[in-house]
Amino acid sequence: MAVSVTAALLIIGDEILTGRTKDKNIGYIAEYLTGIGVDLREVRVVPDVEEEIVAAVNDLRGRYTYLFTTGGIGPTHDDITADCIAKAFGVGIDHDPRAVAMLRERYSPDELNEARLRMARIPDGASLIENPISKAPGFRIGNVFVMAGVPSIMQAMLDNIAPNLEAGARMIIETIEAEGLAEGIYAEGLSRIASSFPSVSIGSYPSFSTSGFRNQIVVRGKDPKAVAEAAAAVRDHLALLKGDGAPL
Amino acid sequence: MAVSVTAALLIIGDEILTGRTKDKNIGYIAEYLTGIGVDLREVRVVPDVEEEIVAAVNDLRGRYTYLFTTGGIGPTHDDITADCIAKAFGVGIDHDPRAVAMLRERYSPDELNEARLRMARIPDGASLIENPISKAPGFRIGNVFVMAGVPSIMQAMLDNIAPNLEAGARMIIETIEAEGLAEGIYAEGLSRIASSFPSVSIGSYPSFSTSGFRNQIVVRGKDPKAVAEAAAAVRDHLALLKGDGAPL
Repeated sequence: MAVSVTAALLIIGDEILTGRTKDKNIGYIAEYLTGIGVDLREVRVVPDVEEEIVAAVNDLRGRYTYLFTTGGIGPTHDDITADCIAKAFGVGIDHDPRAVAMLRERYSPDELNEARLRMARIPDGASLIENPISKAPGFRIGNVFVMAGVPSIMQAMLDNIAPNLEAGARMIIETIEAEGLAEGIYAEGLSRIASSFPSVSIGSYPSFSTSGFRNQIVVRGKDPKAVAEAAAAVRDHLALLKGDGAPL
Repeated sequence: MAVSVTAALLIIGDEILTGRTKDKNIGYIAEYLTGIGVDLREVRVVPDVEEEIVAAVNDLRGRYTYLFTTGGIGPTHDDITADCIAKAFGVGIDHDPRAVAMLRERYSPDELNEARLRMARIPDGASLIENPISKAPGFRIGNVFVMAGVPSIMQAMLDNIAPNLEAGARMIIETIEAEGLAEGIYAEGLSRIASSFPSVSIGSYPSFSTSGFRNQIVVRGKDPKAVAEAAAAVRDHLALLKGDGAPL
């Protein structure tokens, strides 16, 4: 039986919920984690409100192997993630000398004011996640990884985190184009194939453009043999439907 | 006191969690709802797993004025949203004659097979949401609106839903460019201003590109006078910092 390593992602920020900022992190992190054998099972977006963040952190860190967060670790008053994480874990929080040292690489003593020092507030017992771009670190405490919201910084932090993650069996994914066939034509056969391969997940994904629908069938699983057999069964089924001259 | 009408969004689909499909609906819906005076307070993404969907629907519909869902209402075996909604509400589900009639506008009797009829499965007591693009309807039951995942169809459904939504006082948003000023420079003043205007929410949003950081300050609230005054205070503070020749 393939080992399953699971994760949740918590996006923290009013700006996503008002639509001011269009999130670019969910898709990136989802693809990244899938690629290294970590199953992303849930995503939540919550506002910059302490009780909402604390509740979501405690719910999600208890349900999955890992919890990743993005956003709210900058120098302004609306950056409350670190304090919320400390509260969720019931630990203290203060300026961390290691984090202060990192900020000193970027800021002169004059520049390193109270607000910027806020970025060195790290919950007790956390380890730091380096930020090669703007120095202010993320951190890990327990199974929770706290990252920046700015995509380029988040991506650099994720690269630093990845080698330390326990990885499960990697997901094997086969994508099959249902060229010219409508979902309603192959749905019944696809359902039968899905029932025959319980270890495999089969999805059908339509997309729509001015040139009409395009349907893709995605076969996913951790057992290479089962995925290959299920994908072959899907291809055979589609070929049969085309050969039958079924309506497009 | 401004009335608050709140909402949550539930994105249903393995394809978002594996990163195969990059979500385009969160940002669109967030901006749309903000524009019509509905406050989006939470977003969740869950997989195509019945118990996860049912639990999220029941949690979210109890906490907010409205719940919107996207995804999982097509003709294939992995489209389980309608059944999950029926289960969450504890009502029956069957082929709805009104929905079947809509499908007949698109499909000939020969084409309207068992799989396609699946798209006419509607929970008892729900009203339908028209789909001008591919006919298969969404539906509303209680305070829950069930929409397609394909962006163009979801957008058409949202246009049909909007006139029926109770709207709160609209959010007024002023965006101020912190030209050349770093967050750490204005953070302290911004925090003071935020404290002085409790009815207003002030956020600072850095973005990063090859040409460096760009910071925007966003002042949001439902009281036009308070938003205008807070925005003026922010502008004055930024001008003062620039006049002072503070480090950039």
